[in-house]
Amino acid sequence: MEKLKKYVSVKDEDQFYHQGAVELLIFNFLLILTILTIWLFKNHRVRFLHETGGAMLYGLVMGLIIQYVTKSSDVESGTVYECEKLKSGPSTLLINITDQVYEYQYKREISHHNVNGHQGNPMLQKMTFDPSIFFNILLPPIIFHAGYSLKKRHFFRNLGSILTYAFLGTAISCIVIGLIMYGFVKAMVHLGQLKQWEFHFTDCLFFGSLMSATDPVTVLAIFHELHVDTDLYTLLFGESVLNDAVAIVLTHSISIYSPKKNPNAFDAAAFFQSVGNFLGIFAGSFAMGSSYAVVTALISFMHLTKFTKLCEFPMLETGLFFLLSWSAFLSAEAAGLTGIVAVLFCGVTQAHYTYNNLSLDSKMRTKQLFEFMNFLAENVIFCYMGLALFTFQNHIFNPLFIFGAFVAVFVARASNIYPLSFLLNLGRKQKIPRNFQHMMMFSGLRGAIAFALAIRDTDSQPKQMMFTTALLIVFFTVWVFGGGTAPMLTWLQIRVGVDPDEDLKAKAVSQSASNLDKNTTKAESAWLFRIWYGFDHKYLKPILTHAGPPLTATLPQWCNPVARLLTSPSAYGDQLKDGDTDYIINNDELTETYESSVQVPVPSQDSTGSIQATGKEDIHEGDLGLGGYKLQLQQAAGQPQMNSLA
Amino acid sequence: MEKLKKYVSVKDEDQFYHQGAVELLIFNFLLILTILTIWLFKNHRVRFLHETGGAMLYGLVMGLIIQYVTKSSDVESGTVYECEKLKSGPSTLLINITDQVYEYQYKREISHHNVNGHQGNPMLQKMTFDPSIFFNILLPPIIFHAGYSLKKRHFFRNLGSILTYAFLGTAISCIVIGLIMYGFVKAMVHLGQLKQWEFHFTDCLFFGSLMSATDPVTVLAIFHELHVDTDLYTLLFGESVLNDAVAIVLTHSISIYSPKKNPNAFDAAAFFQSVGNFLGIFAGSFAMGSSYAVVTALISFMHLTKFTKLCEFPMLETGLFFLLSWSAFLSAEAAGLTGIVAVLFCGVTQAHYTYNNLSLDSKMRTKQLFEFMNFLAENVIFCYMGLALFTFQNHIFNPLFIFGAFVAVFVARASNIYPLSFLLNLGRKQKIPRNFQHMMMFSGLRGAIAFALAIRDTDSQPKQMMFTTALLIVFFTVWVFGGGTAPMLTWLQIRVGVDPDEDLKAKAVSQSASNLDKNTTKAESAWLFRIWYGFDHKYLKPILTHAGPPLTATLPQWCNPVARLLTSPSAYGDQLKDGDTDYIINNDELTETYESSVQVPVPSQDSTGSIQATGKEDIHEGDLGLGGYKLQLQQAAGQPQMNSLA
Repeated sequence: MEKLKKYVSVKDEDQFYHQGAVELLIFNFLLILTILTIWLFKNHRVRFLHETGGAMLYGLVMGLIIQYVTKSSDVESGTVYECEKLKSGPSTLLINITDQVYEYQYKREISHHNVNGHQGNPMLQKMTFDPSIFFNILLPPIIFHAGYSLKKRHFFRNLGSILTYAFLGTAISCIVIGLIMYGFVKAMVHLGQLKQWEFHFTDCLFFGSLMSATDPVTVLAIFHELHVDTDLYTLLFGESVLNDAVAIVLTHSISIYSPKKNPNAFDAAAFFQSVGNFLGIFAGSFAMGSSYAVVTALISFMHLTKFTKLCEFPMLETGLFFLLSWSAFLSAEAAGLTGIVAVLFCGVTQAHYTYNNLSLDSKMRTKQLFEFMNFLAENVIFCYMGLALFTFQNHIFNPLFIFGAFVAVFVARASNIYPLSFLLNLGRKQKIPRNFQHMMMFSGLRGAIAFALAIRDTDSQPKQMMFTTALLIVFFTVWVFGGGTAPMLTWLQIRVGVDPDEDLKAKAVSQSASNLDKNTTKAESAWLFRIWYGFDHKYLKPILTHAGPPLTATLPQWCNPVARLLTSPSAYGDQLKDGDTDYIINNDELTETYESSVQVPVPSQDSTGSIQATGKEDIHEGDLGLGGYKLQLQQAAGQPQMNSLA
Repeated sequence: MEKLKKYVSVKDEDQFYHQGAVELLIFNFLLILTILTIWLFKNHRVRFLHETGGAMLYGLVMGLIIQYVTKSSDVESGTVYECEKLKSGPSTLLINITDQVYEYQYKREISHHNVNGHQGNPMLQKMTFDPSIFFNILLPPIIFHAGYSLKKRHFFRNLGSILTYAFLGTAISCIVIGLIMYGFVKAMVHLGQLKQWEFHFTDCLFFGSLMSATDPVTVLAIFHELHVDTDLYTLLFGESVLNDAVAIVLTHSISIYSPKKNPNAFDAAAFFQSVGNFLGIFAGSFAMGSSYAVVTALISFMHLTKFTKLCEFPMLETGLFFLLSWSAFLSAEAAGLTGIVAVLFCGVTQAHYTYNNLSLDSKMRTKQLFEFMNFLAENVIFCYMGLALFTFQNHIFNPLFIFGAFVAVFVARASNIYPLSFLLNLGRKQKIPRNFQHMMMFSGLRGAIAFALAIRDTDSQPKQMMFTTALLIVFFTVWVFGGGTAPMLTWLQIRVGVDPDEDLKAKAVSQSASNLDKNTTKAESAWLFRIWYGFDHKYLKPILTHAGPPLTATLPQWCNPVARLLTSPSAYGDQLKDGDTDYIINNDELTETYESSVQVPVPSQDSTGSIQATGKEDIHEGDLGLGGYKLQLQQAAGQPQMNSLA
């Protein structure tokens, strides 16, 4: 007896010591497998299965193994205990069992029908980690990276179309899915598969909004590898980045809407409240993200007389950059806004301002760090999605609902892309051709965001049904559409092997040849953005970065004392060009040089790009290292440098 | 009523959405503050408070704020509920409270006397995170970085002394602390502050072993900044790195020892079991860590005919390197070994073999990535230690115990350093001078490992007393000794501003001048290590890396077919030097060139080094970028290159 007790105590301690190690090891193992597979695929130029699809497949197999190999050891887990003494669920529960006090931590509220799902395997329960890890740790690097690596030049050229697809398109998609699903739900109620009061129209809209977040990471990776037409790439990338933000805020607004009195009736007040909520959260998150980026830019720009600049300490600079960007996300979440939107715009703003102030070392460090985090986080998420199919305990597979969802998703994508493209083509100088529209239709993959939104709430039966269905749609679209991208490109006869810079110049030349009037170029960028560009170039860039014309030249005479104080000494070399067209072109060149020296890559893929590309990168970075150092020396010696040389 | 319910549900959901964001934000904020402080200190050349001390201070203040600003909202947390139906604590508990089922997750077993500590503030509870996060996520990067950045040349020169301090010294320290504490515990029992049966001699030894883990991160940072004598630096760094591993395994072995029958009597069988356990776990962890590193080396070395090498894809290479090294830690933990020891030797082996196979891009990426993770993890740990003083709910401040512990720690350090230095000086050609011994005595700071070992188990009252005491010793040593390092160096007249390479050469020259016999140089490295070096250079390096002589030259004639298969084409350029002394010097040069081109830095500090150092680094890296690229080109063109040029 004595011996036994000792043995048990040692065993307990051991378990405590190795807590969490096994679960992390499983994820590590899956990721290692995925990386080795990517390597294999790169060698054989396999394109029918992308790394994300592979990661998901491995996750699936691992989930299957865990479910059938590990045994349900915890017989008492499924029993529900009555507790009359408590009024509500405290966050920590102390329970006295046979003279030992055990501490239990509140996890969540669950419905009665889910209880048997918990007669469970503790291993499976451990593998299904907290959705808050998803939101606070795995998603931010991916979204930030998307914002940080946005190709601004092409993005702004197509801004109108991108905004239309992202805002209007997502709204259309959400409503269409909601309506179709409502039809199917009615049918299910009719067939007796569902009770009337369980599934409201707002639930359908909720499902619609979460399924509207597209994630064409697979498609974009292949586009990048094959150098597909830049406009198509930009439209798709821009749409998917912004569309995530819109879908998340929309989901939140709809979940707040729910008029409890008669959930199926339209409540105008609640509706407008939701719309206001949507706008408020979007704007607030945007402001939060940008202001963190501006603070970072200001800190990295500071040159107080007694201080060495922060860029002399690349590690501190990188650390600050990383922490402030993450704080943008966390602050937004803590303030009740949407972190994803905040971190996206934080990324865009950081790339626009802060990046220019960073030391060369930090530029490389931040680029590689975010690339690496994006790569890992993305593969963890896809592994996890694979795992979830078997480790999640409360799946509800309803064939009718699943069929309905598949139909709804494709109909919604079609009624987003085709009508909007038609409308946009009325206004666009350079039309979106038919084959681009088909390709965009085909690229409506669902991924991490849809999954993350669905897993946030899996308490009620409708929500569980939604989660299961969303998971299946993710599997299908990633494997089938992701795998079919390369054949589809050939079939639709879309140009590949395009050099983005050459492409833009060629288009500009052909345009100016066909129309010599300067106004065409002007019309290309909308008036609102020309005003913004002017303001940005004349005032913000000089204040926040070392680039741009000196403030003394752009501000009125009487502001000179202030202007001199705020302008970086290195800005005086640059002279303000007059003429609007000239300026816009100049601005394009700026972003171009920025991009070629930074090589901010497309999410996740540049990193593992083809052999030739990597070779080229090495030379570039070597050059950058030396050339940049010389530049730094010049700066230190007080020589003003031309911005166009940087 | 309807409205209220709706409001509550929204509020609940909101809380769910932002779960964890506030806590992470607090840590982010503390880290940002710390970075800004480091920047400030760098500018004013402040050395009386190091960044780790600063991080701890901020943590302390934040803990104070959280405790006094946030309120205890959860009145039911402190109540213990009786549960007769349960036999043992299941991992998940489902409780039915007023018709709602709540899910609770098992956290830990607690003693009756701790219960009132939980009448608590949910915010404080959230801030005290799981020790498993400490062990699985925060510690591995720090320890790996220490191994990865070990200056092998100086390390092996002083290996005998380092091993003596680390193994024998830690054992002495553990026993001395144990004995002194046992005396104090007896006194406390006598004074009625403690009950006899609560605190055994093994508990005292347990405390002794956990307090024996020294962590002179602050001292080493200042040493590095001031370029203190390399031998002193190496002795201290080597001792502290290995000593952590020894202390951890020792703590584990002692916790297993506990002969339950008469805990104060000596039980020979249990003792030898513990010793065997110690050796087994140490050897097993060593083997586990090294084998993961060897696997990484083999994968990165592979050049199958149909395959492009992994180094063509820097991101995959970095990812694999990172994941396999982390897996070494996790596998060891999962197998019941010690992850810290595994990841330490994994780091050493990775630096020795895998590093040579990496592409230039990956060399830089891995170096910067591990540096960055080390920097963040270290500061998070020190912030957390500061926080723990106020957020931890079950502190037991016993003045006598604390006083005893302070005495014990200093007596133990003295009886470790002085007698062992005396013994070592009998055998060493180059004596450890008196002032070095004083400095080593002074540098016996306690830090992350002691804290981590103490926080692992805070269930019983003795363990809580130990935790509180360990925390106070960490505070005292980091602030007082860490802050006093620079004055102490001056006072002890220890050389600063030494160039490590020059230093070694000068010493070698003076030695060969005073004693022309080759045997002196031989005697310098112990025979065991010369054999190992020979084996490593002739067989392992050629098999695992591109460096070293071709196997065809080192293996016997009849092995030629196998040898040809295993040798990298680039190895043929290197010829085996004959003569043992020549070889050892050559080997030193190898490591030297490796170090100067890599600049693997001392943990955490190189990164934030002084201005001059950073400037120099930039040039080096620029050079490396171009020079390295040329080398790669040569390799690609099939030109064999001399290893000494690399």
